[in-house]
Amino acid sequence: MNSETKQILEAVRDGSLSVDEAVLALKTEPFEDIGYAKVDLHRRIRQGAAEVIYGAGKTPQQICGIVKSLQSHGQDRILVTRLDEEKAECLLEMSESPFQYHDSAGIAIFGELPKADGIGTILIATGGTSDIPVAEEAALTAEFLGNEVRRVFDVGVAGLHRLLPHIDEIASASVIIAVAGMEGALASVIGGLADCPVIAVPTSVGYGASFGGLSALLSMLNSCASGVSVVNIDNGFGAGYLASRINHMEAGKK
Amino acid sequence: MNSETKQILEAVRDGSLSVDEAVLALKTEPFEDIGYAKVDLHRRIRQGAAEVIYGAGKTPQQICGIVKSLQSHGQDRILVTRLDEEKAECLLEMSESPFQYHDSAGIAIFGELPKADGIGTILIATGGTSDIPVAEEAALTAEFLGNEVRRVFDVGVAGLHRLLPHIDEIASASVIIAVAGMEGALASVIGGLADCPVIAVPTSVGYGASFGGLSALLSMLNSCASGVSVVNIDNGFGAGYLASRINHMEAGKK
Amino acid sequence: MNSETKQILEAVRDGSLSVDEAVLALKTEPFEDIGYAKVDLHRRIRQGAAEVIYGAGKTPQQICGIVKSLQSHGQDRILVTRLDEEKAECLLEMSESPFQYHDSAGIAIFGELPKADGIGTILIATGGTSDIPVAEEAALTAEFLGNEVRRVFDVGVAGLHRLLPHIDEIASASVIIAVAGMEGALASVIGGLADCPVIAVPTSVGYGASFGGLSALLSMLNSCASGVSVVNIDNGFGAGYLASRINHMEAGKK
Amino acid sequence: MNSETKQILEAVRDGSLSVDEAVLALKTEPFEDIGYAKVDLHRRIRQGAAEVIYGAGKTPQQICGIVKSLQSHGQDRILVTRLDEEKAECLLEMSESPFQYHDSAGIAIFGELPKADGIGTILIATGGTSDIPVAEEAALTAEFLGNEVRRVFDVGVAGLHRLLPHIDEIASASVIIAVAGMEGALASVIGGLADCPVIAVPTSVGYGASFGGLSALLSMLNSCASGVSVVNIDNGFGAGYLASRINHMEAGKK
Amino acid sequence: MNSETKQILEAVRDGSLSVDEAVLALKTEPFEDIGYAKVDLHRRIRQGAAEVIYGAGKTPQQICGIVKSLQSHGQDRILVTRLDEEKAECLLEMSESPFQYHDSAGIAIFGELPKADGIGTILIATGGTSDIPVAEEAALTAEFLGNEVRRVFDVGVAGLHRLLPHIDEIASASVIIAVAGMEGALASVIGGLADCPVIAVPTSVGYGASFGGLSALLSMLNSCASGVSVVNIDNGFGAGYLASRINHMEAGKK
Amino acid sequence: MNSETKQILEAVRDGSLSVDEAVLALKTEPFEDIGYAKVDLHRRIRQGAAEVIYGAGKTPQQICGIVKSLQSHGQDRILVTRLDEEKAECLLEMSESPFQYHDSAGIAIFGELPKADGIGTILIATGGTSDIPVAEEAALTAEFLGNEVRRVFDVGVAGLHRLLPHIDEIASASVIIAVAGMEGALASVIGGLADCPVIAVPTSVGYGASFGGLSALLSMLNSCASGVSVVNIDNGFGAGYLASRINHMEAGKK
Amino acid sequence: MNSETKQILEAVRDGSLSVDEAVLALKTEPFEDIGYAKVDLHRRIRQGAAEVIYGAGKTPQQICGIVKSLQSHGQDRILVTRLDEEKAECLLEMSESPFQYHDSAGIAIFGELPKADGIGTILIATGGTSDIPVAEEAALTAEFLGNEVRRVFDVGVAGLHRLLPHIDEIASASVIIAVAGMEGALASVIGGLADCPVIAVPTSVGYGASFGGLSALLSMLNSCASGVSVVNIDNGFGAGYLASRINHMEAGKK
Amino acid sequence: MNSETKQILEAVRDGSLSVDEAVLALKTEPFEDIGYAKVDLHRRIRQGAAEVIYGAGKTPQQICGIVKSLQSHGQDRILVTRLDEEKAECLLEMSESPFQYHDSAGIAIFGELPKADGIGTILIATGGTSDIPVAEEAALTAEFLGNEVRRVFDVGVAGLHRLLPHIDEIASASVIIAVAGMEGALASVIGGLADCPVIAVPTSVGYGASFGGLSALLSMLNSCASGVSVVNIDNGFGAGYLASRINHMEAGKK
Repeated sequence: MNSETKQILEAVRDGSLSVDEAVLALKTEPFEDIGYAKVDLHRRIRQGAAEVIYGAGKTPQQICGIVKSLQSHGQDRILVTRLDEEKAECLLEMSESPFQYHDSAGIAIFGELPKADGIGTILIATGGTSDIPVAEEAALTAEFLGNEVRRVFDVGVAGLHRLLPHIDEIASASVIIAVAGMEGALASVIGGLADCPVIAVPTSVGYGASFGGLSALLSMLNSCASGVSVVNIDNGFGAGYLASRINHMEAGKK
Repeated sequence: MNSETKQILEAVRDGSLSVDEAVLALKTEPFEDIGYAKVDLHRRIRQGAAEVIYGAGKTPQQICGIVKSLQSHGQDRILVTRLDEEKAECLLEMSESPFQYHDSAGIAIFGELPKADGIGTILIATGGTSDIPVAEEAALTAEFLGNEVRRVFDVGVAGLHRLLPHIDEIASASVIIAVAGMEGALASVIGGLADCPVIAVPTSVGYGASFGGLSALLSMLNSCASGVSVVNIDNGFGAGYLASRINHMEAGKK
Repeated sequence: MNSETKQILEAVRDGSLSVDEAVLALKTEPFEDIGYAKVDLHRRIRQGAAEVIYGAGKTPQQICGIVKSLQSHGQDRILVTRLDEEKAECLLEMSESPFQYHDSAGIAIFGELPKADGIGTILIATGGTSDIPVAEEAALTAEFLGNEVRRVFDVGVAGLHRLLPHIDEIASASVIIAVAGMEGALASVIGGLADCPVIAVPTSVGYGASFGGLSALLSMLNSCASGVSVVNIDNGFGAGYLASRINHMEAGKK
Repeated sequence: MNSETKQILEAVRDGSLSVDEAVLALKTEPFEDIGYAKVDLHRRIRQGAAEVIYGAGKTPQQICGIVKSLQSHGQDRILVTRLDEEKAECLLEMSESPFQYHDSAGIAIFGELPKADGIGTILIATGGTSDIPVAEEAALTAEFLGNEVRRVFDVGVAGLHRLLPHIDEIASASVIIAVAGMEGALASVIGGLADCPVIAVPTSVGYGASFGGLSALLSMLNSCASGVSVVNIDNGFGAGYLASRINHMEAGKK
Repeated sequence: MNSETKQILEAVRDGSLSVDEAVLALKTEPFEDIGYAKVDLHRRIRQGAAEVIYGAGKTPQQICGIVKSLQSHGQDRILVTRLDEEKAECLLEMSESPFQYHDSAGIAIFGELPKADGIGTILIATGGTSDIPVAEEAALTAEFLGNEVRRVFDVGVAGLHRLLPHIDEIASASVIIAVAGMEGALASVIGGLADCPVIAVPTSVGYGASFGGLSALLSMLNSCASGVSVVNIDNGFGAGYLASRINHMEAGKK
Repeated sequence: MNSETKQILEAVRDGSLSVDEAVLALKTEPFEDIGYAKVDLHRRIRQGAAEVIYGAGKTPQQICGIVKSLQSHGQDRILVTRLDEEKAECLLEMSESPFQYHDSAGIAIFGELPKADGIGTILIATGGTSDIPVAEEAALTAEFLGNEVRRVFDVGVAGLHRLLPHIDEIASASVIIAVAGMEGALASVIGGLADCPVIAVPTSVGYGASFGGLSALLSMLNSCASGVSVVNIDNGFGAGYLASRINHMEAGKK
Repeated sequence: MNSETKQILEAVRDGSLSVDEAVLALKTEPFEDIGYAKVDLHRRIRQGAAEVIYGAGKTPQQICGIVKSLQSHGQDRILVTRLDEEKAECLLEMSESPFQYHDSAGIAIFGELPKADGIGTILIATGGTSDIPVAEEAALTAEFLGNEVRRVFDVGVAGLHRLLPHIDEIASASVIIAVAGMEGALASVIGGLADCPVIAVPTSVGYGASFGGLSALLSMLNSCASGVSVVNIDNGFGAGYLASRINHMEAGKK
Repeated sequence: MNSETKQILEAVRDGSLSVDEAVLALKTEPFEDIGYAKVDLHRRIRQGAAEVIYGAGKTPQQICGIVKSLQSHGQDRILVTRLDEEKAECLLEMSESPFQYHDSAGIAIFGELPKADGIGTILIATGGTSDIPVAEEAALTAEFLGNEVRRVFDVGVAGLHRLLPHIDEIASASVIIAVAGMEGALASVIGGLADCPVIAVPTSVGYGASFGGLSALLSMLNSCASGVSVVNIDNGFGAGYLASRINHMEAGKK
């Protein structure tokens, strides 16, 4: 953003931009206001990612509108998260452009998936079968952002013999996303085995004293393994997004 | 208690006990009231265990008094828990009979330890070094109640390679007590490896979002491993006591 | 697990197994991966129990698949928990092999119940009528695992005269499971009367300040009775499973 | 208060009081403002009780000042609660009038205790020895307010045989105050045996998951026994005060 | 209960009862076991109240069965609480005896209401309109138990001028039940005005940070007014029951 | 209220009002009791605002009744909040007078909106699109009470470039209402930029560890920006009402 | 801030400022970086208030340094909050310029208090004596910022007759700050009587279920009185600051 | 670890290792057991980091012993965290080898700091002055692990003009650690500006409703900015460690 600011200032100095235009440019440029949302058209440039629409709490109409606004500005690859089946069907009828819907993850993807161009592979592990939707949200997000993803599901620590066969994958991963509900111990166990960054995703899977994911969340925050950090309960998208950022670290940066 | 009740009823029928005496017997028999406490003299018989004094919140004088009351009724083996060093010194000056003080566990033991006569060995494992005091409270309690105890400390799951060498001990234990703070994952991992009852003791070790042991407690309650149950935070005594009960299960029972 | 490991190592030494085969054996042997789940085929041997399927969060199709995988490996006795009536009906249509459905507990059992071969009787008590489903989950689990079970329902402490008639059963039980919601005091009262291990199961029965079982849970964790441990809220299965383990303690163990 | 209002209005009508005087009377009458506190001089009349000073958070000087203000208005019987030993000593040096200090309860009493004139006896029971200070606060408050009090300490439910001998006292009490920390089950058990109002006082006695009395508090609020109500954690004064009100119910009231 | 015990013991001594019969009598007498519930037939005698059925979590069939069991033992006046409209209709079809259904309170009453025979009037006040169902549960319970009840609804403290007109009723009440959700301040304000016992009932009325009644509950527990005690959130029945007990205090008691 | 009191007293003195009439006047004047509610007819005068009906938990019939009672006393401008679409339709059929329904905010307004007569403009900002209903409740409330409102939606801090263009509006606002869920940081950022009072409204928008608005609530309470205060979660009405009060501060007040 | 931005842009256009200088100006102008703190020198202008130093967590040396930095930039009136007595003494020795220390509030004030120039009077009321320190923090802050303050302490709602005499002051106040711990009902009662903005300050005064001010906080957030908003527990400064902002609302604002 | 396993298996096949030796090797190799701790000697190799000693809950003697054990195995660079000044002095007297103590962070470092060899710079920002100790723990940890660190302290969002000057550093950082207490909004604001991974560290700085860091923790978990993850409250070490891992991502990994 700062370099844009500088360009605008330089344009003011050069006289190619009036002061009022400059103020306007600083204000209105980076997004289109379509009433119910301010569509961010520069985020891809500014933060190095394609646009994502958080579907929960938006109507199919609103989603359609945002998609169209993005596409009309040349954004072809769009990810819609938290889209339940009913909304997806509405969207299908409404939308002028095709998309692929992944019901396991509640995700729709407009446009082609990019080629994976990250440092290495992102490994996504779940404690149980019920954690898979959250894991898939993370996996598809990471793939959408140009990463190779390996899935290892149902390897919860209560059956350590199910996790240990995957030690090679743990050792060779570039980033690991550990998805688990209930007591969330998977993050600690993987954190103790891995030497790459581990992103822990607590899930709301469980009952009773799991208190909607609180137990897994606290467990992961208190992990005695180093190199583990945590995102919000059920936040598969956030984990996939962050994993992609880490997997695209560049040596060139100063 | 019921068989005593029946004996008393039979004595009434036989005329060897008046009705008023019976009422009295039912009321006053099993303990001595020494003012600040009702000393339970029959618990050893009724529940198969020597007497234990919970030291927290009692003055050395009160503890002394209870010890004396017990000894005068023939109880020589007495365990005092939650006894800090300062109180232990007071007790040392006051007490007419000797005792052994274990400062790591805050425990004093009057009398000799019994021979171990349980089914097998009780394995006590801790996640870290700071969990040792709670583990020692459990260990000494179990030894006081006639159990062979094996200690395996500092085997937290974040370094799985520290736990795995003990797989033989886990496999051969009769009961396991898993003591851990922070994220408390140890209970789940051991629970997944063991085929004996596992008693989980959350500890208040940790900081921040461990919330005084709450994180470990919830983690252990939500353990996806079967065969695990939980006692109160830092309740080493309760774990040792219950482990001893389990380790003294008798085939003869109907 | 360790003895299997040793056998594999010995086969390597003897040349009957290549190193790569050994690595593979260590990795893939103990379960079949059927996509959505890793079916554990050795658990019966490793942990001494038949297989259990946690039904919540699994589709009838998935449950059917796991059942078939188990049966094709010779596992005939299978317990499915947390199976609501609707799912049970689906399963009925789909399943090739018959099973018995217990709607009070949400449990399906494939195969015959085994003969009871435990040390003694497991007593299951509830505070009220609403706690019965959780108690039945515990009872059927214990019966499935080869235990004699006695049920004593609706004996909450607020009517002590309803509990006291059962003092004989409390005194003679091998293990007791105390199931209660609201204030959960049943565990403490039974814990004070019994001389066997007591497993407390808080239930989510109640309203207002019971906060979904939290009140009963805290109450049970703080029980001033020794010999009491606690499992997750509404976790009847966990209590039944643990009770069975305790009731099958063997003197032969070293 | 309303009848006073009416009297004032009548005086206005009769001309014996000007409007401004009436406004003043309505405003300033019932207490003396001594700067740091508004001493309530009419409460005895209005609410039928002698004055009580809550000592916590007040300096000995402030307490002295309030005592003097009360005495100068003819109030000789004064109760000071939450007064630790250090403050009590300061007060002793400062005070012109004598008082009796009960260190077990942190209570000072100026003046003579009144004769008990309630309907019956208030029974105060505690679960353990550590609950005694709270129980004593309740007991002395009740005695200060003219009640006969019976103390039954250390009768916690984990040793039901210690409670049952007191069944006669429970049956004959006019009001019962049940004081307990940890799991607070005493209130439910007594509530199930008694046919009089039961006031439950949770205490902060305990550790770990007792969370400073929260466990006992929730337990008591969820009591399945009818006729039980609850006051704040450690609020012995509140319980004693309410018990006295109940024990002084009058048939004459309309 | 104790006098019954004594009678049984005397019968044993006199030979009119065998020991085994005595044991049986102690065990089975006070209730009928109808499978899903132990119907308490002696509570009226033992605790001085007619029988109450807590309808939540019971089927209409079960309720019918309990009603019949009670009626066949001569209990004609029965209160059923927490009975929603749907269940009430089922019950209407099934029941052989008529009852009156109060939908505002979810209460059914079999038999005639007794004449009010308490010391005075029970005043029931609510903060708002939404608190009325809980207040009605309290009111009908109290009337069912023989009390005169006065209702004063929607007098919340935020409009003090709506409460003040009722000062006469507050001053003349025998017991007051203050029912309020949201911030629950009504209990404190009434507690400061009244000189009789005040029972506070927090309700789950509110949103956001009322957290299902927690805010009102804490508020009432912390009331700085003396003479106030609290029951569980939404527990109108408990408040009405306790108020009746207090309103039936007898001078004759020793 | 006090001046009314004084007037009444003066009328008593002058003999134009009897004492009993005065008592009555003090009691019954300011509202009409229509059974299920006490309709406050003087609030407009007493607190300077038109009447508001909180629709949640009231039936359309009750709302109709209150509206009519108000209108018959000359109150034409009435705001009904928390009115869902279904109820609004019922109300439409029932109501004799027209009203305007704003479904985005769940608000119905009877009568004309007044001219804005406040000090300046109330700026209402939201973090996201999902916060709009709460913001609209605040906006319409403020407009109903005579304020000019400017809406700035979807300016959450995670895209600071969306907030900064509005710096002029922030700088020139008279009062700002910051509406945000999730982490609620909007309040702090705006609080740091503004020099007018900022009212923060946490919303229940979010998932997982947002715990129904608790996260935003705590965040806003802990705001390190001065000049920020907080209302209940989702309490748009309260924010709009308070903002109007502030925006109508008068210099004339002494 | 925006007008400064515009001036800078205009200077760039006019050539009186280079682009780099402009960037620098935007960055470094408004504060001096003295290592451990960034001293804000423009806040007085930007937000219309003198500078305040939050003393908690700062050493006397650091406070001295910040004071000096402010004074050297012409800021003579400085408020230091949360300054305990020990720190205040250190500061006294170190400081080159005099200040006045208010130990009741933990506040130091450098320079003269300004003349009160607000719209009206700020009324500060407390529930009890223990709330006074928080109230004084609010009062001194408001006076420091140029407001007339009236203090009304110890008027808790449990003794409504202590609050009612102050109805005139409540009615004539410009802003009211209601400070209360325990159940925090004062805010609701005052909120119901007042027609000006009410700022509620929960305090940590209380014990047991007050949970460090949580009870009062929730109570105030749920206040059913309109026009009430809440600041953090014990945040007297925040309340005083906000009250001052409201009391300085100007009609001139557009 | 897996490659070691394979080497051991190959040695078994080759006959250079017996089966028993292999079992032993698998078990005992990677650490030295010095009684109170299992010193991990291979972690540097296995996880690519020098050894760290968590000082809290360890005596200076224990720390000394672990240091010596590490040094005797060739580990010269050792970090000790959570070491208060008193312990540091003890350690100074005891230790045979020198170390540098950083009291601001409670950190001791044995050996030389390595040259920074990461991808880029780690930026560490704090909201306020009181967050500095946690930030320093993170900074020193990162430097100890070979990273270049830039510190930007006291840039809390309530004064956005203090953060904005650092936009260049935010834009050019490789990883950012955002350290903040109170409302923790800093993480969201930085997260919205940055395009690199952001690690949020909530601190326990604050009072009242900050609840020991809970407010900041929840805020950060709910951050609406993508690319943010969270570690435990006050866990500067964990953040520094993870940042280093991310800053050492290698393109070579497959």
